[in-house]
Amino acid sequence: MFSPLIKELIESLRCLPGVGPKSAQKMALYLLERDSQGADRLAQSLRQALDKVGRCHQCRTLTEDTLCPICADDQRNSSRLCIVETPADVIAIESTKQFDGLYFVLLGHLSPIDGIGPEELGLDRLETLAKEVGVEEVIIATNSTVEGEATSHYIAQMLKPHGVDVSRIAQGVPMGGELEYVDGNTLALALEGRKRL
Amino acid sequence: MFSPLIKELIESLRCLPGVGPKSAQKMALYLLERDSQGADRLAQSLRQALDKVGRCHQCRTLTEDTLCPICADDQRNSSRLCIVETPADVIAIESTKQFDGLYFVLLGHLSPIDGIGPEELGLDRLETLAKEVGVEEVIIATNSTVEGEATSHYIAQMLKPHGVDVSRIAQGVPMGGELEYVDGNTLALALEGRKRL
Ligand SMILES: [Zn+2]
Ligand SMILES: [Zn+2]
Repeated sequence: MFSPLIKELIESLRCLPGVGPKSAQKMALYLLERDSQGADRLAQSLRQALDKVGRCHQCRTLTEDTLCPICADDQRNSSRLCIVETPADVIAIESTKQFDGLYFVLLGHLSPIDGIGPEELGLDRLETLAKEVGVEEVIIATNSTVEGEATSHYIAQMLKPHGVDVSRIAQGVPMGGELEYVDGNTLALALEGRKRL
Repeated sequence: MFSPLIKELIESLRCLPGVGPKSAQKMALYLLERDSQGADRLAQSLRQALDKVGRCHQCRTLTEDTLCPICADDQRNSSRLCIVETPADVIAIESTKQFDGLYFVLLGHLSPIDGIGPEELGLDRLETLAKEVGVEEVIIATNSTVEGEATSHYIAQMLKPHGVDVSRIAQGVPMGGELEYVDGNTLALALEGRKRL
C-alpha cells in the first residue's frame, strides 16, 4: 500500500531499539505528514554523528572530540578511575553525583565466543593508564552478569600488581527491594556481602 | 556528559512520536555503539523520502510516484471512493479487506482556526473527480471527532448535488465493547443508529 521509498523508511526505522512494525509505520507517516523539519534535522544529525563520532582517546567513550567532556574537565579527580561497560553506564553513575573521578569505558565485556578479548576492550591502554598516569584507585562497575563478573575479575588481576587500589561496586538487595521479590542469586550475594552493624 | 554531536542526535531523535529523552538517549547510543549500518540506512532513507515523497496526483496520499500503488492498480473499482483523513486510515480500511474502491486522502480535516479550509484539503479536486471521473459512490470515513464530523458534513453537502451516493461509516459500540465501559456519546450514537432486526 506504501510506495517504495516510504516502505524503505518504515523498514529502516526498525533499526531503532524498541521500534516494531506498527510504530515504525506511525513514525514514518508522522515525519512525512507533519514534521519534515524534524526529519531533516534527524537525517542530518545521524549523518554528522556517523561521520565524526569516534572514541575518546583517553576513556574510549563515544565522542567526536579527542577527549570527551568528562576527560577534558580538569576539575575531575584523575587519580580515581571507574570502569564501566557502556556510555549509558557513565550516565547512570554520574546521576548519583557520588563519583568525582574519570571513567574508562570498555564498550563491551570479555566474550571469547564473539572474539572480544582484552585488546578489543582496550585493556592494554587501561594498564598503561594505571601504570603511567598515577591512577591510585580503580572502581570496577561492570554489569552484575556472568560476563561482567569475568571482565571484572580479569581487570582486577591485571591491575593489582601495579599497586592500584581495586574495588568492585557492591551487589545486594536494591533500595526498596522486598526480599520476597528479590531473586535467589541476588539474595545469596547480599548475604555474602553482609556488613557488621 | 555527551559531546555536542551526540547531544544533537539525542535531541533530534525526540522528533519521533512516542520518543522521550530516555529512549532518545538509548536509541542514539545503540546506533553509535552497535548499529552504524542501520543508522546509515536510516539517514539515507530519511533524506531520500524527504527529497522525493510528495502527494499522489489522484488521491493526495503520500508517495514519490505520480500515482500511489492503490490509484495505479487497475483492478480497483474506480466508481467507489472512500474519503479518509490520513494515509494511516487507508491502511486501517485496507486491513478490513472490505473495500475494493479508491481513496481520497484529505491529509487533515477542516479547521478554520488553523487556516485549513476546503482548498487545503483538496476538496476542489474531489469535486472535479466526482463530476468528471464517474464516481458513483462516496464513503466518508473521516474520524468520529468534532472536526471529522464537520468535514464529513461539508463534503456530503458538496457532493450530493452531483448525484453521487454519499454515505458515512457507521458509529456505535465497538466489537466486544461492554456497554458499561462505552462512553455516553458513543452510546447515544449507537442508539440513534439502531437497526431493526
Ligand atoms: Zn573520555
Ligand atoms: Zn493515489
